[in-house]
Amino acid sequence: MITTVKFALLSLALAFSQGLQHNYIDEFDEEPEAERVVQASKYGSLWPLPQKVQISDVSLKLNSFSFKIVDAKGSTAGPSCSLLQNAYRRYYEYVFGSAKRLELRKSRRTGPSELTELQVWITSPDSDCDTYPSVASDESYELTVDQPIAVLKAPKVWGALHGLETFSQLVYEDEYGAKSINSTTISDFPRFAHRGILLDSSRHFLPIKVILANLETMAMNKFNVFHWHIVDDQSFPYLSRTFPQLSQQGAYHPYTHVYTPADVKMVIEFGRLRGIRVIPEFDTPGHTQSWGKSQKDLLTPCYSGSKPSGSFGPVNPILNTTYDFMSQFFKEISVVFPDAYIHLGGDEVDFTCWKSNPDIQKFMAQQGFGQDYSKLESFYIQKLLDIVATTQKGYMIWQEVFDNGVKLKPDTVVHVWIGGGANEEMGKVTGAGYTTILSAPWYLDYISYAQDWQKYYKVEPLNFNGTEEQKKLVIGGEACLWGEYVDATNLTPRLWPRASAVAERLWSAMDVTDINDAFNRLSVHRCRMVERGIPAEPLFSSYCRREYRGV
Amino acid sequence: MITTVKFALLSLALAFSQGLQHNYIDEFDEEPEAERVVQASKYGSLWPLPQKVQISDVSLKLNSFSFKIVDAKGSTAGPSCSLLQNAYRRYYEYVFGSAKRLELRKSRRTGPSELTELQVWITSPDSDCDTYPSVASDESYELTVDQPIAVLKAPKVWGALHGLETFSQLVYEDEYGAKSINSTTISDFPRFAHRGILLDSSRHFLPIKVILANLETMAMNKFNVFHWHIVDDQSFPYLSRTFPQLSQQGAYHPYTHVYTPADVKMVIEFGRLRGIRVIPEFDTPGHTQSWGKSQKDLLTPCYSGSKPSGSFGPVNPILNTTYDFMSQFFKEISVVFPDAYIHLGGDEVDFTCWKSNPDIQKFMAQQGFGQDYSKLESFYIQKLLDIVATTQKGYMIWQEVFDNGVKLKPDTVVHVWIGGGANEEMGKVTGAGYTTILSAPWYLDYISYAQDWQKYYKVEPLNFNGTEEQKKLVIGGEACLWGEYVDATNLTPRLWPRASAVAERLWSAMDVTDINDAFNRLSVHRCRMVERGIPAEPLFSSYCRREYRGV
Repeated sequence: MITTVKFALLSLALAFSQGLQHNYIDEFDEEPEAERVVQASKYGSLWPLPQKVQISDVSLKLNSFSFKIVDAKGSTAGPSCSLLQNAYRRYYEYVFGSAKRLELRKSRRTGPSELTELQVWITSPDSDCDTYPSVASDESYELTVDQPIAVLKAPKVWGALHGLETFSQLVYEDEYGAKSINSTTISDFPRFAHRGILLDSSRHFLPIKVILANLETMAMNKFNVFHWHIVDDQSFPYLSRTFPQLSQQGAYHPYTHVYTPADVKMVIEFGRLRGIRVIPEFDTPGHTQSWGKSQKDLLTPCYSGSKPSGSFGPVNPILNTTYDFMSQFFKEISVVFPDAYIHLGGDEVDFTCWKSNPDIQKFMAQQGFGQDYSKLESFYIQKLLDIVATTQKGYMIWQEVFDNGVKLKPDTVVHVWIGGGANEEMGKVTGAGYTTILSAPWYLDYISYAQDWQKYYKVEPLNFNGTEEQKKLVIGGEACLWGEYVDATNLTPRLWPRASAVAERLWSAMDVTDINDAFNRLSVHRCRMVERGIPAEPLFSSYCRREYRGV
Repeated sequence: MITTVKFALLSLALAFSQGLQHNYIDEFDEEPEAERVVQASKYGSLWPLPQKVQISDVSLKLNSFSFKIVDAKGSTAGPSCSLLQNAYRRYYEYVFGSAKRLELRKSRRTGPSELTELQVWITSPDSDCDTYPSVASDESYELTVDQPIAVLKAPKVWGALHGLETFSQLVYEDEYGAKSINSTTISDFPRFAHRGILLDSSRHFLPIKVILANLETMAMNKFNVFHWHIVDDQSFPYLSRTFPQLSQQGAYHPYTHVYTPADVKMVIEFGRLRGIRVIPEFDTPGHTQSWGKSQKDLLTPCYSGSKPSGSFGPVNPILNTTYDFMSQFFKEISVVFPDAYIHLGGDEVDFTCWKSNPDIQKFMAQQGFGQDYSKLESFYIQKLLDIVATTQKGYMIWQEVFDNGVKLKPDTVVHVWIGGGANEEMGKVTGAGYTTILSAPWYLDYISYAQDWQKYYKVEPLNFNGTEEQKKLVIGGEACLWGEYVDATNLTPRLWPRASAVAERLWSAMDVTDINDAFNRLSVHRCRMVERGIPAEPLFSSYCRREYRGV
């Protein structure tokens, strides 16, 4: 990490806070928040912090009329790459915001300390412009800002997208409102390849508009995976072409609370244009009550004594019809979602219903499972994984599937979520040679008073006992915002900037751990999100130059 | 409480929830949320529950073209009462919402089971139409809905406003989308006269739009006091005509982050039109850092050894200039804010700075205060109270002022906020003969996982040892949303419907404590707030027929 020290930031926002707060409480055992004043970081408002940053104190102005973002001459992605052309427009808007509307001068000569152009240069023979991002995508970029032009070099479009975001974060307003940027050199790449956000559209339906707004915000934080926990017990909003009755019966409402094929396409393309993979989760055999509304034999009938009780448990693992259904269903899913991975769930299977059912009991005996129902669970999952493997997809699964000893494909991603013993679990999973992602410390649905982003920030994903080889198998992590208590009314401010803490942990170098510098940068980064129309909540007493304009 | 049992509600929203949730956590010691399905309450979606409700199962339809809200013949408030005329329009909108835009038929005959009119009848010779609400205002009303007309009788306009809200809560959509209401008799009045919400515009500036939206929502919940904690250490957004430099220097920004006289007027009138008192808090002698930015001798210079350290403590209580300033300042405040009460704060005075200052030490000795700085605090507050008393205003103060033995006017309202021992404190304050309001259990800034509204709901304000006379001195309570972690981005969903729990506790009869019935009614009430454009957050997994349309 190299940087010059004299850089003085005229930040997007100045925040201020001091004094006592009216916060006596008997039931909590918390200290009053320490005084904390936002100060200018030498890294400005960069978030997440790039791997190498060198910011000089030479300031250049940007003229909103003449400044252009253009393809570099040698770039392998030209005007036909609409992904980049869209991104240029988007970042032009973000850089100049409302200011450009005040600009009347039609043309003028270039001043001596002006930045006139950002050239975007894709260097690899294949720009990846028309493909989907993957876990192996090259996301690196190099950015040089110098009078009169800035150059953004990236092997692939994915790095260019990140570089554009970084460029926009370098721009600030001077004391006269002029857009300025300091001469800067940045070389950047992510520490982890999988940097995700889990949203849950089953406990509450999330309107498409909300999902897109959060994809947009993910891009501002260099997240690259949208883990779409699309269905669960409570509702089944996914409109399946093969089994339309699943949402017809299982959604909260069959027309207003569903994701149509067009909606899903839109989410995937919106994500792709921002370098974000969309990985859907269809969680079985538990978490499937809503599936059973229309698929009458799919779930296990629970018994009360010798008679069916009328309620249903997990997917019925002993019927061939179950596997016929799953084959057809996942064949559709594998076509609808282009990502190389599907998340198959496999968590929290409750055995009570299985135990009550005489047919299940008989099957257990036949198979020699004894009373070990986790063997039945594994039996089901094993068959499901084999089905999904035929679709040429890789799969992600929650950690229980690994814990139960199910045989997994070598490219399986094991998702560690259980808070107690997560470090040991990371050791075990990687010790067995599987790639893994971490979510256990990043359950953002668990809210608490004060600045819990710091807790998320302080997590070190590789802080477990294991070899260097094992550590390489940790490909990233995800911040999870489960949906029991969030919907369109409160999801966005609850997610941001708390998830931003996770974003920096997963992108920046391991030694980027200065919580004070993080506070200073994140405070300004959150005001930038607000200026861009995202209701990201405050870290602490402070203000943004331009406050949120919604209710 | 009387009610018929057969009433079947076709609710605004159906909510549904079942199954497990992905919620293992090691650091919390919480049980998974019990399954809970929203069911129709026999009281529909009434919130807060009226004192007496009788709902029959006779359903009447409302035609959005012909239905009218009109002044009853004998009403003492006629067309010139713009408070009521505004309210009629507002509630017509709320009742018919978007539906009315679909209505094309110009006119039609009245059907046999149709409600054609709501007559509003102010019965007292003085309707109070052009006055401000007060702690003594009559808020009672009686509502009779019967074919073909409904009658809302209230002594004063304040009761009529509440009755209009109640009427709008009785209207529901039948299965064909037709607006319907059941034949109903309601007799209603508040249990407590002071039902407040505290918002803090100092830790974060709250745009006027946000304040007005929350006043609107307060009216939907029958709150009647907006306690405006307008300034504090962090910023001074109140633009004073007498001392404009206070906000010029003390606001986060002198133009974009201030409340102008016109803004304040708008807030007061917007509140008045909804039966809401606006009580400003100017908290001294602590919590005044922002005041000191412009008033150079107002705060106590702190010393480091024998020299001033450059920092400042609470208001300097030993200078005559302090009291001259306070006299002028509160003279202005007493004119700008029409309510009979001003909140003078008086909490959390830190003595460290006073102790360090040699002039203060000398003064303490002269006065014979020894080392008891609470005597100095009381000395200041006593003089301040005397000043404010000359403006003919009553005052509210935080409990410390009472605890320190300051001599208070008999009509003083003591505000109990300290969590530990709040019940004992209520006993002491009322035992000394003072009126009191409770906030200690209702600090809504302290967020936690899951349904904390239930905790607020279960509070019983009179649950302390005291005589009947003492209990009568408890005039109400306030839900407080301190501003350290909230601003325009997240305030509204964090406040609602959590504050709604407090609303029912303060309005409804003491025996309204059925948490399941409350859940059922509140779930629909929150969807109603969402339909009215307020991003009130969900209670638990569920859906609203019309989800929030913002981000």
